[in-house]
Amino acid sequence: MQIAIVLYDGFTALDAVGPYDTLSRLPGAETVFVAERTGPVRNDSGTLALVADSTLEEVTRPDIVVVPGGPEENVRLAQEPLGEWLRTVDAHTTWTTSVCTGSLLLAGAGLLKGRRATSHWLTLEHLPGYGAEPTGERVVFDGKYVTAAGVSSGIDMGLALLGRIGGDEAAQTVQLLIEYDPQPPYDAGSPQKAPAAIVAWMRERSRNMAPGERSA
Amino acid sequence: MQIAIVLYDGFTALDAVGPYDTLSRLPGAETVFVAERTGPVRNDSGTLALVADSTLEEVTRPDIVVVPGGPEENVRLAQEPLGEWLRTVDAHTTWTTSVCTGSLLLAGAGLLKGRRATSHWLTLEHLPGYGAEPTGERVVFDGKYVTAAGVSSGIDMGLALLGRIGGDEAAQTVQLLIEYDPQPPYDAGSPQKAPAAIVAWMRERSRNMAPGERSA
Repeated sequence: MQIAIVLYDGFTALDAVGPYDTLSRLPGAETVFVAERTGPVRNDSGTLALVADSTLEEVTRPDIVVVPGGPEENVRLAQEPLGEWLRTVDAHTTWTTSVCTGSLLLAGAGLLKGRRATSHWLTLEHLPGYGAEPTGERVVFDGKYVTAAGVSSGIDMGLALLGRIGGDEAAQTVQLLIEYDPQPPYDAGSPQKAPAAIVAWMRERSRNMAPGERSA
Repeated sequence: MQIAIVLYDGFTALDAVGPYDTLSRLPGAETVFVAERTGPVRNDSGTLALVADSTLEEVTRPDIVVVPGGPEENVRLAQEPLGEWLRTVDAHTTWTTSVCTGSLLLAGAGLLKGRRATSHWLTLEHLPGYGAEPTGERVVFDGKYVTAAGVSSGIDMGLALLGRIGGDEAAQTVQLLIEYDPQPPYDAGSPQKAPAAIVAWMRERSRNMAPGERSA
C-alpha cells in the first residue's frame, strides 16, 4: 500500500507529519513524500524543509494521497500540475485525504463536488464555492474522501483512517506507540472554546492579511 | 529568542515537528534545525528527511533547545559531539527540553541529574540509571528542564512552554491557530488506557528487538 504525502512551497509542517507518523506505521505501508521537484520543500514560515523524494510524475498509482494545508491562496495550485496530478491519481486511490486548507486544494481540483468536507476553521466558508458542503466536524469521511480540520487534526485523521484500513487494534497500537493521550494546557483549540477576543482577532487578521502573509 | 531543534539520524519526525509548529509561532522567535552536518537528516523509518540548516558549531547560544527522541540506543549520541554540544549550550539556555527518548539523551549528557523527568512510557525505567527521577506525567517542568512523554506529547509541551514564555493568550492563540482540540478516535494513548494485550505485546517486542530495530 503506497501512501503519497504531497509537499509544496508554504505547506504547514504538522499538517503533513501528523498523518505521516500515524499512517506510515501501518504494517506494509510504503510512504513517499512527493512534489513537483525532488529535494527540500520549505514550509509556511521558511524555517523548516522536508525533502520530497519523488516527483509527481514518478508516483502514478498511490493508494492513499494526503494533501497538507498552507496559506489559503495555495488553492491556486489546483490550477497547476499538482491539481492535474491530484485528478489523475484520484481515479485509482483507495483514499484521497487532506488536512487543514489542503481540502481547498482538493476542492479546487474538483474532487469534492457534492461531498461533505472540512477545513481550517478560518477557511471553511470557502468550501461551498467549490461545490463542497462544509461541516464543523474534526474529521469528515465521505466515501473515500477524508478531510481534517486545522493542522493538528491530521493526527486524529491518521488514526481514524488507520482503524478503517488495519482495524481497531492496529490503530490503538499506533496510538499507544506515539503516546497520543492529549492533555492540552488550555481549552482553546476551536473557535467555540477559545476566548472570544482571540477568535475575533484571528478573524480580523485573516481578513486583512495580504496574500502571502496568510498561513495556518 | 533562538530555538534550536536538534536532528540526528533516526529521530522521530513528530517529536520534532510538534514543538516546532507550536513554539516557532511565538512572536520574535527564530527557529533553526541543527545537526552535526547541514542537509537532509533521515528519521527512524528512513522515509522522511528534515533539513538541518545549521551545524552544531554554528549555533552556540540558543535560548531554547529541543531534543526529539528516536531509537532508544541513540542515547549513545550523548557520548558524541552532540552530547558535548548539549552540555555546552545548556550553560546559557533559558529552557532545555526534550520529547520522548530525547530525555535519555539529555540524561546521558548528564543534564538531568537529580531532576524529575519523563520519557516514552517504554523507556521511563532507564532514567534512574542517569540520576533522573522518572514521573508518569505527560509534560514535566523541573527548573529550566522540560521533558515530554512519547512522540505526540511534544505538542502539549510546546503549548505549555509557550504559555510560560509568552503568556496564556499567546499560547491560546497558537492552540486555536493549529486547531488543537484533540478528538482521538480511541482511548488507547497510554499504557494505563490501552488494551492490556497491546501494552504487553509492545513491552515484549521492545525487549526482544535488536538495537537498530527499535523506534518510538
